[in-house]
Amino acid sequence: MEMYQNPGKRAYHMAEKIFPICRSIMGKGVRKTLHILDDYISQSEGIHFNIYEVPSDTSVFDWIIPKEWVIREAYIDDESGNRIIDMKNNNLHVLGYSGSIDKWVDLAELKEHIFTQPEQPEAIPYVTSYYKEQYGFCMSQEQLDTLPDGKYHMYIDSEFIDGNLTYAEINLAGKSDEAVLITSYICHPSMANNECSGPALLAELVRYVNKMKNRHYTYIFVLNPETIGSLTYLQQKYQYLKEHLAVGAVLSCVGDDRGYSLIHTRYADTLADKSLANILSNRKGFHEYSFLERGSDERQYNAPGIDLPVVGFCRTKYGEYSEYHTSADDMGMISHAGFQGSFEVMTEWLNALEHNHKYKIKILGEPQLGKRGLYPNISRRGGYEEVAAIKDFIAYADGSNDLIDLSDIIGVPVKELINIAKKLEEEGLLDKCDC
Amino acid sequence: MEMYQNPGKRAYHMAEKIFPICRSIMGKGVRKTLHILDDYISQSEGIHFNIYEVPSDTSVFDWIIPKEWVIREAYIDDESGNRIIDMKNNNLHVLGYSGSIDKWVDLAELKEHIFTQPEQPEAIPYVTSYYKEQYGFCMSQEQLDTLPDGKYHMYIDSEFIDGNLTYAEINLAGKSDEAVLITSYICHPSMANNECSGPALLAELVRYVNKMKNRHYTYIFVLNPETIGSLTYLQQKYQYLKEHLAVGAVLSCVGDDRGYSLIHTRYADTLADKSLANILSNRKGFHEYSFLERGSDERQYNAPGIDLPVVGFCRTKYGEYSEYHTSADDMGMISHAGFQGSFEVMTEWLNALEHNHKYKIKILGEPQLGKRGLYPNISRRGGYEEVAAIKDFIAYADGSNDLIDLSDIIGVPVKELINIAKKLEEEGLLDKCDC
Amino acid sequence: MEMYQNPGKRAYHMAEKIFPICRSIMGKGVRKTLHILDDYISQSEGIHFNIYEVPSDTSVFDWIIPKEWVIREAYIDDESGNRIIDMKNNNLHVLGYSGSIDKWVDLAELKEHIFTQPEQPEAIPYVTSYYKEQYGFCMSQEQLDTLPDGKYHMYIDSEFIDGNLTYAEINLAGKSDEAVLITSYICHPSMANNECSGPALLAELVRYVNKMKNRHYTYIFVLNPETIGSLTYLQQKYQYLKEHLAVGAVLSCVGDDRGYSLIHTRYADTLADKSLANILSNRKGFHEYSFLERGSDERQYNAPGIDLPVVGFCRTKYGEYSEYHTSADDMGMISHAGFQGSFEVMTEWLNALEHNHKYKIKILGEPQLGKRGLYPNISRRGGYEEVAAIKDFIAYADGSNDLIDLSDIIGVPVKELINIAKKLEEEGLLDKCDC
Repeated sequence: MEMYQNPGKRAYHMAEKIFPICRSIMGKGVRKTLHILDDYISQSEGIHFNIYEVPSDTSVFDWIIPKEWVIREAYIDDESGNRIIDMKNNNLHVLGYSGSIDKWVDLAELKEHIFTQPEQPEAIPYVTSYYKEQYGFCMSQEQLDTLPDGKYHMYIDSEFIDGNLTYAEINLAGKSDEAVLITSYICHPSMANNECSGPALLAELVRYVNKMKNRHYTYIFVLNPETIGSLTYLQQKYQYLKEHLAVGAVLSCVGDDRGYSLIHTRYADTLADKSLANILSNRKGFHEYSFLERGSDERQYNAPGIDLPVVGFCRTKYGEYSEYHTSADDMGMISHAGFQGSFEVMTEWLNALEHNHKYKIKILGEPQLGKRGLYPNISRRGGYEEVAAIKDFIAYADGSNDLIDLSDIIGVPVKELINIAKKLEEEGLLDKCDC
Repeated sequence: MEMYQNPGKRAYHMAEKIFPICRSIMGKGVRKTLHILDDYISQSEGIHFNIYEVPSDTSVFDWIIPKEWVIREAYIDDESGNRIIDMKNNNLHVLGYSGSIDKWVDLAELKEHIFTQPEQPEAIPYVTSYYKEQYGFCMSQEQLDTLPDGKYHMYIDSEFIDGNLTYAEINLAGKSDEAVLITSYICHPSMANNECSGPALLAELVRYVNKMKNRHYTYIFVLNPETIGSLTYLQQKYQYLKEHLAVGAVLSCVGDDRGYSLIHTRYADTLADKSLANILSNRKGFHEYSFLERGSDERQYNAPGIDLPVVGFCRTKYGEYSEYHTSADDMGMISHAGFQGSFEVMTEWLNALEHNHKYKIKILGEPQLGKRGLYPNISRRGGYEEVAAIKDFIAYADGSNDLIDLSDIIGVPVKELINIAKKLEEEGLLDKCDC
Repeated sequence: MEMYQNPGKRAYHMAEKIFPICRSIMGKGVRKTLHILDDYISQSEGIHFNIYEVPSDTSVFDWIIPKEWVIREAYIDDESGNRIIDMKNNNLHVLGYSGSIDKWVDLAELKEHIFTQPEQPEAIPYVTSYYKEQYGFCMSQEQLDTLPDGKYHMYIDSEFIDGNLTYAEINLAGKSDEAVLITSYICHPSMANNECSGPALLAELVRYVNKMKNRHYTYIFVLNPETIGSLTYLQQKYQYLKEHLAVGAVLSCVGDDRGYSLIHTRYADTLADKSLANILSNRKGFHEYSFLERGSDERQYNAPGIDLPVVGFCRTKYGEYSEYHTSADDMGMISHAGFQGSFEVMTEWLNALEHNHKYKIKILGEPQLGKRGLYPNISRRGGYEEVAAIKDFIAYADGSNDLIDLSDIIGVPVKELINIAKKLEEEGLLDKCDC
């Protein structure tokens, strides 16, 4: 993928590469996915994920890590020997964590073990049953409707073994031990936006951050299975995170190009909320969701007592697009442009955070901009006049506002304010004032 | 009335019973009304009102308790001996606290002593003059318009005697000496909604609270004449109330079935405001009024320096319905359903208060609801999914929110949250956290 | 002007008197203007401005006071000897602070030194270049378009001399050393609303305040050239102002009759913002502007570190009317009624400030208004019922609200509340409570 200059394009091809793997919350699929991502990052950046394995039956907070699910084969044949469905064709055909079965049944009994999604009749739904043993298949409603009466052979060859929950972390130290967390999850099989996109974008962000010069923050990148994985990670690290985490984001459904979504923390009052909302407020199709509409690992990071400033970031939010959790969430759902938009939001956000100082103008009264060549250069850039932006920046650079606040107050993008702050600092007009 | 199961029906019949009594701020009518209410409560519950009598000429804050008004007869005859109006037919025909008169006058002079309500031409208005002696009659504008020129005999036989202002209190102790006050007034003659309804509903609430098991709060029920009566009560009790009162409500116009009204305290910032607004927000036709639109005894409870957390509760607010303060506010204004709605609001409110703890989830990370049978039972109840409500409850049960806050935040009625809290406490997941 | 009773009329005629003077930020025009204003005030009130002269090349914060500009003559002739423009006809024809020139040029070169305002083709624009030396003329676009090819004689006779920046202050002591600042500027030539109106209104306010009996505040009136003048004033006085200033206002464009405008301070959170917004909220055509839309000397008073509670007050805000900064801002822009409206707003504001105590009702419970003759006098005045206003005043006179707050809460103009407070104080019902 090094042939592509465009990070969005590279992320798309990474998603394509990990799309076919049969992942679940634990097991071979997870490890294979992490291996591909690690290869890519280590070849480009010379750094590796730290891989952690936590055994089955370990208690994590209120939960217990289950057995690993080994799935070998799953299909249904009719009495003429026609193969009705086969997980070789689509990983979604087997219920996640399904037990084994080898039984001839009539159509009525078969239907008791088939999951469909009637409102999306062409799509195979994605269904799992991690914590209660049962067996089952998933197929499209349309296909189910064509099945004639008769005998059917349900065959699933699976096993539950003592194994490990796997998660991966990369820690890129900055000048400060204040940390930024970027996380996504690697437990979904063969759905493109949800969730090959999150890990693929995360890999590009690792590359981007690794190249950031003089970065202030320490960056932590985490990939784990959703829910049980983030709980496992948090059980081991939450004290550290409570001491050091400045902001974090869960990446999910970041490859489509329909809109932009922010899922807020519990009270929408953290730097993560304020800063990412600021960046996204300049994007078309931006939608803010309250924590009541949470759904991914932001649930754990924001649970009472954990209380970490971690928001959710999506293009179209999980659950808000019809292809979600079905076979229709395929590679056609995502695009170079979709990823590129996400990449640009995330990197603009990280840059805003890196420069998010409180500023204070050093002199009393308005400075004379003219003698510094800052006044007459009235040029329209990005729809605002730079000179007006400079004056407004100065007017509110009173030591109480950080760069995000300034952007919110004066209505100029942070990336423009970074340049203005630099010019004013060079002129000796501005103090950083983070005390 | 014990024959009726429905509290709304019982309250309606109590209102019917006290409707005909000629009440004023002091005197026989007040005592007779309290006697009927006391009989009813004592027969059902075995408890009595404490009746207080405070003499005429006693100073209460800025006021002086007036004489008792004894009214014996009031009528107007024409020169042919026809009786034009007679208070035997309607108590409203005589000006409240009218002095005596026995005089033949012409129509012009008669009109100087007649009050009508031209915008409600069929109705007899309710008019009083407690603190300035004058005499007068009230009749419908329609009737006044039919009177021909001629001589008329104005006859009122009344007297002002040294007497007492009467008020009544029932105190039902709870485990705590934190108190809830429910109050209404008993000085209005022969108008149904305003104000036979308040005392009638209060009687049902006394019965309800008396049967509440393990109640936390101490409940205080007070009936007094409006304004001068609540001032008298407050002069004697406000120091106690300032120490102990958690919330209170003035009941007025609680028997019609048109809407629901809350009159807020001075800054709408007390537990009384928050909790009753929460309960009423689920009712159709709910209207919130600021303290600027106050009118009944909430005026005294919220006066500067008194500062008690007492809201006003009405169905249709006094002054907001055309029958208000006229003979058209008759038994047709009120109904079983009207009272029943008020009763349900009030008892739902009291239950919410009784359970209004701050809750804190005891474990870190989301609890595993599935293993406790709380997860798969997805059933639509009252328009929300219980499982979503449980998860949202847990998400915000961080020790900072009481049950009313939780209901306001997650949009689920308090009565549902009481059940959820109970289930979670039984599972050992939840701490009360009122420290 | 003493012949006019109406302050608006007097202000209009003062504006007319100073309109023709060729003012710039420093020099003869400024002094002549101040002389006229001082004459007027001293004749009427027997008091004088203190005039301060600060030399060229003095540093004021980030700026340096420039030389004085002496302008003697400025015209353009064509080759036939016709005078195309001449500053004798309109002061705006010469670029402010233009250098000298005496040169025959062709039309193309002439145009390089001509400023027009194409979107107002009939008007001569007002252009200055205080801090960068250049020469130039201003004329209407329409006139420029008529000029044929040919030779033109540009002639400007000007000089820059060591001189002084002039500003003027009147200080009217009150009982307290808490101060109110009223300021405007005197550097604009021959434009009526912007800015002959501000100094003219200020003169009437000096007269008004000088006659205020027992005034609480000390009033400071300042006239200076915009920007460099307010910076000069602030450099000398800002420590004093930071200790004593309660509120202030910059007057600009106060002579037209189109609307009313308030330019807020940086966070719109000072007494100046709250009080003037309250007064203006009762005016038709009131428009509130955030500090982002600042433009006059409020820029300096609100600069970070200066942080003085000074708002801007206009009828139509500078920059919001098409005649702004052109020859079309002539005496037809302003009117007696325009000034009178400004005068009434300002004096109502000053009176509100003078009476802006926190009040606390002295008795518990509602006072009995009837016995004090305050209850039955229900008369409609100014669209509210006085008795309702009295009751609402009492309800919120709890010691936490000042008169402006009370007006905001109960929706009754401050000037009415001043009367109510007086009545209640006379009845012994009210305490001032400013501790």
